[in-house]
Amino acid sequence: MAVAASPYFLLLFLFHSLAALASLAPPPSQPPPPRVPQKVQVWPKPVSISWPLPAYAPISPSFNIRASPSHPSLRHAIAYYTRLIRTERYTPIMPPVNYTVSGVPIRLLALSVSDPDVPLGPGVDESYTLSVPPNSSSADISAATPWGIIRGLETFSQLAWSSGAADASGQPIVPSEIEISDHPLFTHRGILLDTARNYYPVRDILRTIRAMASNKLNVFHWHITDSQSFPIVLPSVPNLANFGSYSPVMRYTDQDVRRIVRYAGAFGIRVIPEIDMPGHTGSWAGAYPEIVTCANKFWAPTAKPALAAEPCTGQLNPLNPKTYRVAEDVLRDLAALFPDPYLHAGADEVNTACWEDDPVVRGFLADGGSHDRLLELFVNATRPFLVHELNRTSVYWEDVLLGPKVSVGQTVLPHDTTVLQTWNNGAENTKRIVAAGYRAIVSSASYYYLDCGHGGWVGNDSRYDVQEKEHDGMPLFNDPGGTGGSWCAPFKTWQRIYDYDILHGLTEDEARRVLGGEVALWSEQSDAAVLDGRLWPRASAAAETLWSGNKGSNGRKRYANATVRLNEWRYRMVARGIRAEPIQPLWCPMHPRMCNLSQ
Amino acid sequence: MAVAASPYFLLLFLFHSLAALASLAPPPSQPPPPRVPQKVQVWPKPVSISWPLPAYAPISPSFNIRASPSHPSLRHAIAYYTRLIRTERYTPIMPPVNYTVSGVPIRLLALSVSDPDVPLGPGVDESYTLSVPPNSSSADISAATPWGIIRGLETFSQLAWSSGAADASGQPIVPSEIEISDHPLFTHRGILLDTARNYYPVRDILRTIRAMASNKLNVFHWHITDSQSFPIVLPSVPNLANFGSYSPVMRYTDQDVRRIVRYAGAFGIRVIPEIDMPGHTGSWAGAYPEIVTCANKFWAPTAKPALAAEPCTGQLNPLNPKTYRVAEDVLRDLAALFPDPYLHAGADEVNTACWEDDPVVRGFLADGGSHDRLLELFVNATRPFLVHELNRTSVYWEDVLLGPKVSVGQTVLPHDTTVLQTWNNGAENTKRIVAAGYRAIVSSASYYYLDCGHGGWVGNDSRYDVQEKEHDGMPLFNDPGGTGGSWCAPFKTWQRIYDYDILHGLTEDEARRVLGGEVALWSEQSDAAVLDGRLWPRASAAAETLWSGNKGSNGRKRYANATVRLNEWRYRMVARGIRAEPIQPLWCPMHPRMCNLSQ
Repeated sequence: MAVAASPYFLLLFLFHSLAALASLAPPPSQPPPPRVPQKVQVWPKPVSISWPLPAYAPISPSFNIRASPSHPSLRHAIAYYTRLIRTERYTPIMPPVNYTVSGVPIRLLALSVSDPDVPLGPGVDESYTLSVPPNSSSADISAATPWGIIRGLETFSQLAWSSGAADASGQPIVPSEIEISDHPLFTHRGILLDTARNYYPVRDILRTIRAMASNKLNVFHWHITDSQSFPIVLPSVPNLANFGSYSPVMRYTDQDVRRIVRYAGAFGIRVIPEIDMPGHTGSWAGAYPEIVTCANKFWAPTAKPALAAEPCTGQLNPLNPKTYRVAEDVLRDLAALFPDPYLHAGADEVNTACWEDDPVVRGFLADGGSHDRLLELFVNATRPFLVHELNRTSVYWEDVLLGPKVSVGQTVLPHDTTVLQTWNNGAENTKRIVAAGYRAIVSSASYYYLDCGHGGWVGNDSRYDVQEKEHDGMPLFNDPGGTGGSWCAPFKTWQRIYDYDILHGLTEDEARRVLGGEVALWSEQSDAAVLDGRLWPRASAAAETLWSGNKGSNGRKRYANATVRLNEWRYRMVARGIRAEPIQPLWCPMHPRMCNLSQ
Repeated sequence: MAVAASPYFLLLFLFHSLAALASLAPPPSQPPPPRVPQKVQVWPKPVSISWPLPAYAPISPSFNIRASPSHPSLRHAIAYYTRLIRTERYTPIMPPVNYTVSGVPIRLLALSVSDPDVPLGPGVDESYTLSVPPNSSSADISAATPWGIIRGLETFSQLAWSSGAADASGQPIVPSEIEISDHPLFTHRGILLDTARNYYPVRDILRTIRAMASNKLNVFHWHITDSQSFPIVLPSVPNLANFGSYSPVMRYTDQDVRRIVRYAGAFGIRVIPEIDMPGHTGSWAGAYPEIVTCANKFWAPTAKPALAAEPCTGQLNPLNPKTYRVAEDVLRDLAALFPDPYLHAGADEVNTACWEDDPVVRGFLADGGSHDRLLELFVNATRPFLVHELNRTSVYWEDVLLGPKVSVGQTVLPHDTTVLQTWNNGAENTKRIVAAGYRAIVSSASYYYLDCGHGGWVGNDSRYDVQEKEHDGMPLFNDPGGTGGSWCAPFKTWQRIYDYDILHGLTEDEARRVLGGEVALWSEQSDAAVLDGRLWPRASAAAETLWSGNKGSNGRKRYANATVRLNEWRYRMVARGIRAEPIQPLWCPMHPRMCNLSQ
């Protein structure tokens, strides 16, 4: 059945949305500009697409997905994508014109996995090929592992779109005679979510994981605890949450955790838990005051060095043996709840004044000890347990090796069981880490910290009380320019994130040690009320660059093209119930290239 | 019935929420710090509160509100606040301790209005007194006008709070033996919402108005149209929306408008419509191409002056008589739909290159004309109609008088029927306006523009493609510091907004001409998905400063105290279904003063 597109369809485009925001990707009423032929709209952009003709095939109402043989690890994904592909009616802002819908309705999406038993973990093969052969009621996805299959399923769901019509012509269609071959550049593509500065209900974490799956992000780095709160109920040490959580209803039980891990796993998303230590542990002092130094103190006492990088103090005392009994219980419980081979133990921002608040520490230092030695003690008393008894790879923040204040030597951090995560100094610190022989996860604040540029949050801050500019026209603290209170200002736009080359300046050898990157949402000024807008679509920008890069086939940065595609993708995410922020006025995607900086 | 509070209540505090975010104001599980005696928590803070004892009276389950005599203008508010006060169960983050609940349950809130027929408009009396006498089942609100009554009703709703218990002790209680006397410093306290760069469904506008009422904001400045879109369907000139709206479902019909105006009016909120002219009118070109210069052109052509301040070009041609026929139809329709005495006609950012794109304009200029003269022509051909036929006060942006590029003289803008709205140069431009004898609405971008600090949004922008800092350590375009692409960076925090003294540097005489202020949400990167977080609670900060100032009884800025109260207020707004962003980690309100910058 051939149906030529006509202006009638343009006028009839209704945008049916699964979410309440039904009116966000509308049929245009402004006169359409000359159209660029519609390309395939999949985010992240697949590595290789072959689609010779603008031909489409409809999705049959009885569309289903089958893996042969069936695999438990694919069961959830099959159910999810079957429902999504059958029911989603997404009409692009700029739908294609001049295409044919021909051929047999697609009734079956057949999945073939070569190695179905490969467990989810670091470095798994996520490649897939997808094909919609001509004149066939079947389409195919093949992959080495179930995780590649899941990536392919997401791609297939984005190939489908609807004209929006209420009749049969509104049934979704997919490109026909298309072959896609796809695989990620980096195996570690993540989001860090801080659930300690502010709490996020389980449903918001689940929705975030679903959104990650839509973007082929595959690591949920859960920064569970910090000085401000300890929300996770650990069976061996439940008092950490009893005293450390914000309230009884702001906790994650083991049931919650298993649910999240299971849900993520069903999408091929690893959950890497982080219980930050020895810094950032003020919240442990409710249950175990004896093992936390400088707890419950004002963070920045007058005329003295600050006890912490931000309000809420407390660090684990490396000189108290009880510290290690508690830490081991914590790590053991964590390993039981989180099956991932990686376990993140933090070790960022160790504050010397906080340790020195303890008399035993002061004695140790007076006897010739050092803060470096204290940290080394701590790492040596926890890391081997994590690595050898719990059989995990340890992940730490860059500080543990790079400082600048407190650090340990490389002998304390064997390369084969240590991964380091960057956050300062952009490409410089990545270089330092990989040049030292370590694997790196890149989270440079100046590119990937999603909380930057939102002003400061400490109270009683007179620096905001400014009524004029300076006499010489230089900006004051807050206006114009200036940080506005945010240490890592300015706000990182999606373009800034997209353009970041995490391998910048590295040799080939060094580059091999970069596992990938994570955008980070620190939650001092974020919680469930604003979560989606904070994450999306900026995390999508990183998702594409880490999956298939940020360059076009001509070798040049493709951010202009990405703007067009990200606009569409943003609206599709909204339709899927993710309240992503808009990146431009809607006028812009409706008028391609007219909102560029230059012609 | 006296019920002493006990730790039991603390542990039982459950936070029932009208919204889905039920877990956001929790019973604390961390050990409570020494408590400051609970003050009355009303935002904005009332001018005068007398409450000698920490005594409370319960709200009876049969609580109702009655005005004697009844007034049509109060009918909706009475219904709304009756339902709210009966059903809301808000438990503060830091509830009071050591109080008594005694006295008779309050069954009636009696309203007395001296001048019930005063219509809603500029400068109406919004003062009220509120009293909860001891041992009485009635409380009272008295005011000169219905609008004062509505302010008092909101205050009463915030006086009420709940212990959270499931039994009768969970019934809300209000302070007993309390007298409040309250009135605003400024009569114009508003939010500007731009619904042209991106569209907002009616329900999101209604929710915003409800949130405004909660904050005693009283002006909704609706920036309805701009170059990018023209969403309002005007009966005389429907093609402006037919061709200018983003889509048939992204419009505001006259029914929509009446609904919004009525809903706002029921809360004592004025709706001031703005149809920006002669700049910002690219969207008119679909219907009337002949009256728009430089329409549909690339905004920043290579090696030429830009045709507009941002992508999407077009300005009304002052030399085409048809311009005025259309403009008059627009203004007439607007006046029919919006009853407010003020009508905003824009006149900001007139671009000379855009006008010069027209050959007739070029001829005019070559014959000795000027851009100033063109603007003067336009204003003289539209403003008198607005003022004398439609009987409105005209509101314009400061540009029309101050330029810097194109402006008119004071004789074109009679003081008694012209109000000017500032947006540049902070206190300086306010001074210039009021010193010239005009009334001012203050919206200084460097304090009140809510969109600042979110990076830039134009596409194909290579300035974000930066992998390193500069050699000399100076910040590059984007990091660290720098604008990050936003012309008015950095982000304006609530503290920045709160601390702004809109009368800074003015004489007493000049200050009298400042009507008040408006925070502005320009929507290039905002729509319904993120609206609440963009507005709230930052608009609340302006709401208090404009209602009762930003200074304590000691004459000093009270932002530290405001932090405590705004934290509580933020959570209450969330409970009322407004997805306001958090201003701090939840740890902070739970540990008063511990998150301050200094002790």
